[in-house]
Amino acid sequence: MKINANFFNLKDDYLFATVADKVAAYKRANPGKDVIRLGIGDVTLPLPPAVVKAMAAAALEMGQGATFRGYGEYRGYPFLQEAVAKYYEGKGVALEDSEIFIGDGAKSELGNILDVFDKDNTVLIPDPVYPVYVDTNVMAGRRAIFQDGNAGNAFLPLPDESVKADIIYICSPNNPTGAVYGKAGLKKWVDYARAQNAVILFDAAYEAFVRDSSLPTSIYQIEGADTCCIEFCSLSKTAGFTGTRCGYTVVPHKLKYGGAELNKLWYRRQSTKFNGTAYVIQRAAEAVFTPEGFDETRVNIAYYLGNAKVIGDSLKKLSIWFTGGENSPYIWLKCPNNLTSWEFFDFLLNEANVVGTPGVGFGKNGEGFFRLTAFGDRENVVRAVERVERLLS
Amino acid sequence: MKINANFFNLKDDYLFATVADKVAAYKRANPGKDVIRLGIGDVTLPLPPAVVKAMAAAALEMGQGATFRGYGEYRGYPFLQEAVAKYYEGKGVALEDSEIFIGDGAKSELGNILDVFDKDNTVLIPDPVYPVYVDTNVMAGRRAIFQDGNAGNAFLPLPDESVKADIIYICSPNNPTGAVYGKAGLKKWVDYARAQNAVILFDAAYEAFVRDSSLPTSIYQIEGADTCCIEFCSLSKTAGFTGTRCGYTVVPHKLKYGGAELNKLWYRRQSTKFNGTAYVIQRAAEAVFTPEGFDETRVNIAYYLGNAKVIGDSLKKLSIWFTGGENSPYIWLKCPNNLTSWEFFDFLLNEANVVGTPGVGFGKNGEGFFRLTAFGDRENVVRAVERVERLLS
Repeated sequence: MKINANFFNLKDDYLFATVADKVAAYKRANPGKDVIRLGIGDVTLPLPPAVVKAMAAAALEMGQGATFRGYGEYRGYPFLQEAVAKYYEGKGVALEDSEIFIGDGAKSELGNILDVFDKDNTVLIPDPVYPVYVDTNVMAGRRAIFQDGNAGNAFLPLPDESVKADIIYICSPNNPTGAVYGKAGLKKWVDYARAQNAVILFDAAYEAFVRDSSLPTSIYQIEGADTCCIEFCSLSKTAGFTGTRCGYTVVPHKLKYGGAELNKLWYRRQSTKFNGTAYVIQRAAEAVFTPEGFDETRVNIAYYLGNAKVIGDSLKKLSIWFTGGENSPYIWLKCPNNLTSWEFFDFLLNEANVVGTPGVGFGKNGEGFFRLTAFGDRENVVRAVERVERLLS
Repeated sequence: MKINANFFNLKDDYLFATVADKVAAYKRANPGKDVIRLGIGDVTLPLPPAVVKAMAAAALEMGQGATFRGYGEYRGYPFLQEAVAKYYEGKGVALEDSEIFIGDGAKSELGNILDVFDKDNTVLIPDPVYPVYVDTNVMAGRRAIFQDGNAGNAFLPLPDESVKADIIYICSPNNPTGAVYGKAGLKKWVDYARAQNAVILFDAAYEAFVRDSSLPTSIYQIEGADTCCIEFCSLSKTAGFTGTRCGYTVVPHKLKYGGAELNKLWYRRQSTKFNGTAYVIQRAAEAVFTPEGFDETRVNIAYYLGNAKVIGDSLKKLSIWFTGGENSPYIWLKCPNNLTSWEFFDFLLNEANVVGTPGVGFGKNGEGFFRLTAFGDRENVVRAVERVERLLS
């Protein structure tokens, strides 16, 4: 049996392992020091009460013959599809239920969608970016090219008409930079994709953090996007679902390539290689879209954005260049004194006992940059910021 | 963008849709008739109390800061890996926790595992069989050949040394035939796989239905299997998890092909394209392996096997050839009077108002055979059997 040799082309992902090793080594050498983590990419607030209530009630339903549920629909339960469709209505986007696929999170869906694309496509990926866009394509042996994000374009690169691409990744609000495209920028990407007969994979996992109402929270708010874009969203960061696993993927019926409707291909893929998301999880997800759930999740997001503001205000005071933090849980800063990403990491760890994530771990354009996240505890964020200010003032 | 043209080679799966259409048409034409379904492939008994209790308790944990869980381990939580390892210990199989991957069900895992294999492998699939083995390989453009199951080999085909294969599917207890391999049969397959440097994908989804203690319930009870077999199991039929979604995949560290350890490749695949199964679902799954959960699931399985016995006893009385039903929820029978699968379907529906599944829907060797399932309600099973006996006596 021959294994898939493309796996040998994957780079080992040492970023978070190296961060953990360095922190552990520092703590061993300095057992008395209080190290604060501002690099955490996971939510910390518990699930909202409305979600817990719905999930526990659904668990009890599963124990009674009259309300027990066996296999669900491959696209998800209509009650959740309808809740998502209504949420999009609020964004001014009309979706049919059959265009909405409930899954176990954006990461799985972003990887699995590639099954419906030929290997012989050119993939255009921003750099820096969430590493799985690259890795999932390397696994399939697909050629990837990169679009440079940098301080010059505020980490919001625009299309280069001279570049030919078939599959285009956009993540906005962006991980790791926290930068958010405006409508004009996204319109350029949509026009470019249509001109090239390309498909855009739009990762909207952080859309719930957008507070500026002029910024788009769905690619379908852009004219023409319903003919060339698949949108991936997740409740992980919206409602604390990182350990609860539910997301949704929108595949409009208008997406047609080579005479085939992508929605039908994706349905065929899902019905063959997936058996739906757990009923209790879908009931929990439905609760996110109720008035109570919506209010409760907004309180949590406001808390995280409050953390981001504390960090951002401090960086402004220090005159350190950064993006993100206003409509995103991520803050992406230029390392002071022209330090490299890892030099700044070591400096912060050793001198302020604060941990972040070296930007170079997200791509070559991340060198000299650094990611902080807003998912921590407020008190720790405030203490960390005070230490950094003392160090850098 | 070029779509994956292999999707055009997939046959549309009309089996269950056609069954549903025919039943609906019959009911429209005969509104007074009481139609009983013995074709259902889904469980009908609710989740066991121990499972519901654990799931509801876990939901409440997720609502408290002190017990909230974010991202889990890619392989699953240690508490569940350990419970599975202990279950295997009871089968005389020693596994390391890192050889056990918790997933959302055998169907996903059976499809996703193909990511780690090269396209250029020959896949050997039994016929008749669960259709997704074929479809997932067609999607990837992999060449499939078939191993004939028939009445002559009691639908338990043995390897043909003259056939070269790289990836071999075995499902035992089998869907759709209910036939179960003995140790000698599986040993032949393991020896064949080792001689060919092939890998066996062993689908053990129905292992909990085996009552004959001389029959293997895990491929690892066969000497040498830990060097060439991946085992897939699911709680769907074991504990009523079809709508709750949890399974596990065993990839022994000893599996090495082309210098690569499959366990590491699968871990890389899962960490890149999956984010774990929900915490609450893993807690529910853990409860299946507690003494209470084990007893409660056994009661449910005994109920289903009781249904199977009612059907089997009746077929014996009618002198109709069949396999399965003793260590499996499926009964696979030869259509009487040399009817084709669909002729017998129509005959049963029209004359006895009983619905089953035409065997030809599971592959060409299924022609002339018919599948009944034991997942229904006892009273209905008894009534259905009485009607069939009246019709065929």
